[in-house]
Amino acid sequence: MTEQHRSVAGDAATSRTAIPPGTRDVLPEEMAELRAIGDRMREAFEGAGYGEIHTPALEYEDVLRLGDASAAGARYRTFDEQGAVLALRSDMTIPIARVVATRYANAEPPLRFSYHSRAWRASDRGVGEPREFLQAGVELIGVPGPEAEAEVVALIVAALDEAGLRRHRIGVGDGALYRSLLASFGVADEAHLPVLESLSRRDLVGLEGQVDRLGLGQADRDLLVRLPQLRGGPEVLERAASEAAGGPTRAALEDLLALHELLAGHGVAERVIFDLGLVRELGYYTGSVFEVYDPAVGFTLGGGGRYDDLIGRFGRDLPACGLALDVQRVHLAQAAEEALG
Amino acid sequence: MTEQHRSVAGDAATSRTAIPPGTRDVLPEEMAELRAIGDRMREAFEGAGYGEIHTPALEYEDVLRLGDASAAGARYRTFDEQGAVLALRSDMTIPIARVVATRYANAEPPLRFSYHSRAWRASDRGVGEPREFLQAGVELIGVPGPEAEAEVVALIVAALDEAGLRRHRIGVGDGALYRSLLASFGVADEAHLPVLESLSRRDLVGLEGQVDRLGLGQADRDLLVRLPQLRGGPEVLERAASEAAGGPTRAALEDLLALHELLAGHGVAERVIFDLGLVRELGYYTGSVFEVYDPAVGFTLGGGGRYDDLIGRFGRDLPACGLALDVQRVHLAQAAEEALG
Repeated sequence: MTEQHRSVAGDAATSRTAIPPGTRDVLPEEMAELRAIGDRMREAFEGAGYGEIHTPALEYEDVLRLGDASAAGARYRTFDEQGAVLALRSDMTIPIARVVATRYANAEPPLRFSYHSRAWRASDRGVGEPREFLQAGVELIGVPGPEAEAEVVALIVAALDEAGLRRHRIGVGDGALYRSLLASFGVADEAHLPVLESLSRRDLVGLEGQVDRLGLGQADRDLLVRLPQLRGGPEVLERAASEAAGGPTRAALEDLLALHELLAGHGVAERVIFDLGLVRELGYYTGSVFEVYDPAVGFTLGGGGRYDDLIGRFGRDLPACGLALDVQRVHLAQAAEEALG
Repeated sequence: MTEQHRSVAGDAATSRTAIPPGTRDVLPEEMAELRAIGDRMREAFEGAGYGEIHTPALEYEDVLRLGDASAAGARYRTFDEQGAVLALRSDMTIPIARVVATRYANAEPPLRFSYHSRAWRASDRGVGEPREFLQAGVELIGVPGPEAEAEVVALIVAALDEAGLRRHRIGVGDGALYRSLLASFGVADEAHLPVLESLSRRDLVGLEGQVDRLGLGQADRDLLVRLPQLRGGPEVLERAASEAAGGPTRAALEDLLALHELLAGHGVAERVIFDLGLVRELGYYTGSVFEVYDPAVGFTLGGGGRYDDLIGRFGRDLPACGLALDVQRVHLAQAAEEALG
C-alpha cells in the first residue's frame, strides 16, 4: 500500500512534474490513515496536558545554531530581504526551547507542550532518505531527574497504543555516558568523534578498532567495547554495575535504575530496553536518551532525551526532556504489525 | 486574544530569539481553536468526497513557474545538491495540478481533492503581512461549466458554517472578463497590467485614470469604469447586461446567471455577491473567480476560481476549479462575529 504512494524524482515522466529527492506526495487513502494516527496521538498528548504549539517552518539560522551548532549547516537555507540566513527547522525541540524562553519567560514550571509538525533535513545518507517528515512529539520542561523521563516515556508508549501499535519498545540509554567515560580515561576531545560516530551507526566492529587505537589500559578498553553490547532489561544495568567500578558509569547506572523503578510504576517497564551504547546524533542531549522501535520494521520510529542546557541558551535556564515520533514511520510499523498478524 | 499571540521579530528581546518577519508562534489555546476549525472544515470536505492530499513544501521552482510564471520569483528559494532551484510552495493548486497529471494520469474524472497545508509568500506589501499561512481548500477537477463552480462555492459556504461562521459571503466575478474587454477594445497586452493592478487593489479612482489614458471611445471607456462598480445580487448581472451590448461581457454574464441558478438550487444564492470588478492576482484563472468575505472583519478569508488551462501544462488537459481558505483568518472572523454578538 505504501509503495504505490512513494514517489521520487526519477518516477516523473518529465522534469516538469518532478518533485525534489526525499519528498513525496501523499494521496487521500494514505493521508486519511496518517491523519487518524496523528489525531489519536495528539489526543493522547493533550489528554495528558501537553498543549500543541506551532512555530514557523523558517527560522533564523543563527537561532537554530544556538540549539545545535553542528547540524544547522545541513539544512535548507534561504534569505530574508535583509540578507539574514533563514533555514527550514529540522526539529521542533529547538523552536520550542526558543518559545519557552520568550513567551513563557515568567511561567511557573512544569510546562508541557506537544507538536504535530513537518521538519526538514537534507541528509547525506543517500537519495532514498526522506528529507521532509511529519513529527509528533512532546516536551516536558522544568522537571529534573527521572520522574520527567518516566512520564515522557510512558506517554509515548500510551500514544503508540492509541495509534494501534502493539509491539513497540523504547530503547533507553545515557547520551552523556560514553563521552564521560572517554573523558575520564583521558581521551582527548578531538578523538571522541570517530568513536561516537561508530557507536551511533551501531558499528560495533568499527568501534572496537577505534577503541583499540586509543591506546588505553586493558580494563578501560574492555569497558568501552563491552558497554555498547549490554542491551536488555534492568539486569543489564546490574551487569554493567558489576563491570564498572565507579565514576561516570556508576552515576549513570543509578539514574537508569531509578528510571526503571518509575517506569514500573507507570506500568511500562516491560516496554523498555536498556541500551548502554545508545547515543543520539543531536548534540543537545545531556542525560537519558530514548529511541523508539517496533520489531515489525527495521528502522527507529523516533527518539529523544534529556536536554538540560538547551533552553538556557535562549535565556531561561530550565531542565527538560522530550521525545518525537515520525508519524509516517509509525504508520508503516502499524501496517507491518497488521501484516504479521 | 489574538494580539497577545502575535509575534514579530521586533518583539524579541534579543536577536537570539527573533523569528522571521511575517511569521508567528501559535500557543496552545489558539492552536486548539485553529485545530477545531480546521478539523470541522476537513470533515465537511471529506464528507463531500474531497479526499485530502499532501504535497512537499519544497518544489522545483521550474514546476511552480509552469503554473504561475509571474509570482514564482517572489517565493523563498533554496537549492538542491545539483544546484536546481527549489521554492516553498505559495499555494496548493499548482502542486495538486502536478499530482493530477502524474498520479491520476489515467483516472476517470471528476476528481475531488482537499488540503490543509501551510504555504509561504514573501509579500512586498509590508512587514506586517503574514508570510506563512495555513490553507484549507478544495479542488474539483474534470468538470467544466457552472455546475462545478456551484458545487465548490456551496461546499465552502457549508464548511464555514461548520467552522462556526454565520455571516460569510462569497464574492463571485469573472476573472477573464476585464482582460477580454480590454482586448476586444483593441488595448495592447502591455497596457493591461497597470489597469488590472488598480482593479485588483480595488482602487476605482486610480482605475478611472488608467482607463482615461487608454484613449478609448466614450461607451467603451464608460463600460470599463462602471463595470467594477456593479456589486450585489443577480440584479447587477441584469444591469450589466443592459449596459453591455454583447461581446465578452454578454458571454460572461450568461455564465454568471447560470451559476446563480445553480447556487439557488444549492440553497446558497443569498450568500453570494456578484462583483464584476473582481480579479484575482494569480495568473492561472480562466473564468469565474471567488473571494470569501465576512462583514465582521476587513480582509478576505480566501479565494479561488476556475483554472481550465493549468493541469494541461503538467500533461493532462482537464478543466478545474477550486477555492482556498486562510484558516487563521477564518478563526479571526469567527472570533469577531462572536464579539459582535
